[in-house]
Amino acid sequence: MPRLVLIRHGQSAWNLENRFTGWWDVNLTDLGIEEAIAAGRLMAERGLDFDICYTSVQTRAIKTLNLALEAMGRLWLPVVKDWRLNERHYGGLTGLNKAETAAKHGDDQVKIWRRSFDTPPPPLEAGSDWDLSRDRRYAGLPIPATESLKDTIARVLPYWEQVIAPDLRAGKRVVISAHGNSLRALVKHLSGISDEEITGLEIPTGQPIVYELDDDLRATDRYYLSERAPA
Amino acid sequence: MPRLVLIRHGQSAWNLENRFTGWWDVNLTDLGIEEAIAAGRLMAERGLDFDICYTSVQTRAIKTLNLALEAMGRLWLPVVKDWRLNERHYGGLTGLNKAETAAKHGDDQVKIWRRSFDTPPPPLEAGSDWDLSRDRRYAGLPIPATESLKDTIARVLPYWEQVIAPDLRAGKRVVISAHGNSLRALVKHLSGISDEEITGLEIPTGQPIVYELDDDLRATDRYYLSERAPA
Repeated sequence: MPRLVLIRHGQSAWNLENRFTGWWDVNLTDLGIEEAIAAGRLMAERGLDFDICYTSVQTRAIKTLNLALEAMGRLWLPVVKDWRLNERHYGGLTGLNKAETAAKHGDDQVKIWRRSFDTPPPPLEAGSDWDLSRDRRYAGLPIPATESLKDTIARVLPYWEQVIAPDLRAGKRVVISAHGNSLRALVKHLSGISDEEITGLEIPTGQPIVYELDDDLRATDRYYLSERAPA
Repeated sequence: MPRLVLIRHGQSAWNLENRFTGWWDVNLTDLGIEEAIAAGRLMAERGLDFDICYTSVQTRAIKTLNLALEAMGRLWLPVVKDWRLNERHYGGLTGLNKAETAAKHGDDQVKIWRRSFDTPPPPLEAGSDWDLSRDRRYAGLPIPATESLKDTIARVLPYWEQVIAPDLRAGKRVVISAHGNSLRALVKHLSGISDEEITGLEIPTGQPIVYELDDDLRATDRYYLSERAPA
């Protein structure tokens, strides 16, 4: 039966600084590097192996994958990088400190932006410090100026259906290294979680999540690899 | 006009131990890691950029590429890994110390194995410590038991013609991170070097080599990036 592993990238510099990150391309901290290596070691110890790997075009997810693969002796596996697995785009909140933003806009407003299913933050202003329009990796792509979680899901799921799911159906073992919200999109879909519930579901950094799937790619089981070895 | 950059991986553990490595998958040393990062910084400083990256399925070349790309802020670029860019397969010499091998077989014999264009070392014995037949990355592939430089060229050049050259013709900027002998294959082809001369051509580790090509992918210029900035 198909098996899928999801990994949220290890701690990033802005996780640590408590800033809204979204599409800004911050690197892993030393702890994040350790988390990624530990994830790879755990996967090797538990006997997990893969045929193909997917990640976003953001350094923290790519590097998490590369470090984990190296720890598994699997750096040679094919890796596909795609912007549709990127973190949720935080729009005008990108780069801002979360506490400062709450002080300015109020806790309630920030909570709506962070935890509403379908209310996006204000758009990222063109020409701001965090403007991505000159970033070559997004040239020619229909990149958003802000996203709600619903918007994120709307670009993650077509990629899942069109690109990743066919690999699983063809019998390939797949690992996806991505972000809190792009992984929420997949977990919501695979585990059938409601709009209300998904916004409160926390995905821990550097913890491989194993999905056992049936032939229709519906989840028959989901667990943290740290808590249980695959059958 | 098309531009191609070649990088030989940074120092590996067995470069340091003076052992025949070939297809054995040794990692970079700390110096090798530094060389790879320095190569990436140099490419960024000199204004080089890429659209697609090629490497072997060997850790030392993949890691050199990943470290260089990270130093350039280009970890998000697509990377294609293929065994046809692997190092020359050293057959039965794999794993042996070069000095010990010379003491056993004589300097002249080892010189022939190392420097002859078309004489391969004895084949790698099945079941030896360095047998690669159970390595999953080579499953189902027509992998050799030993190779002369001529044999290496015979599997590198079809890959060049069928896969890499079309990217260059399509206007993509290409970097290849590979090995002493798979890069000799490309340099011989691009620069029209004779069978006799190519065996003595040393390609230094971690030094980006720039090829300026014409539309027929013939070399119009070749230089070390450390010695000259691209026009």
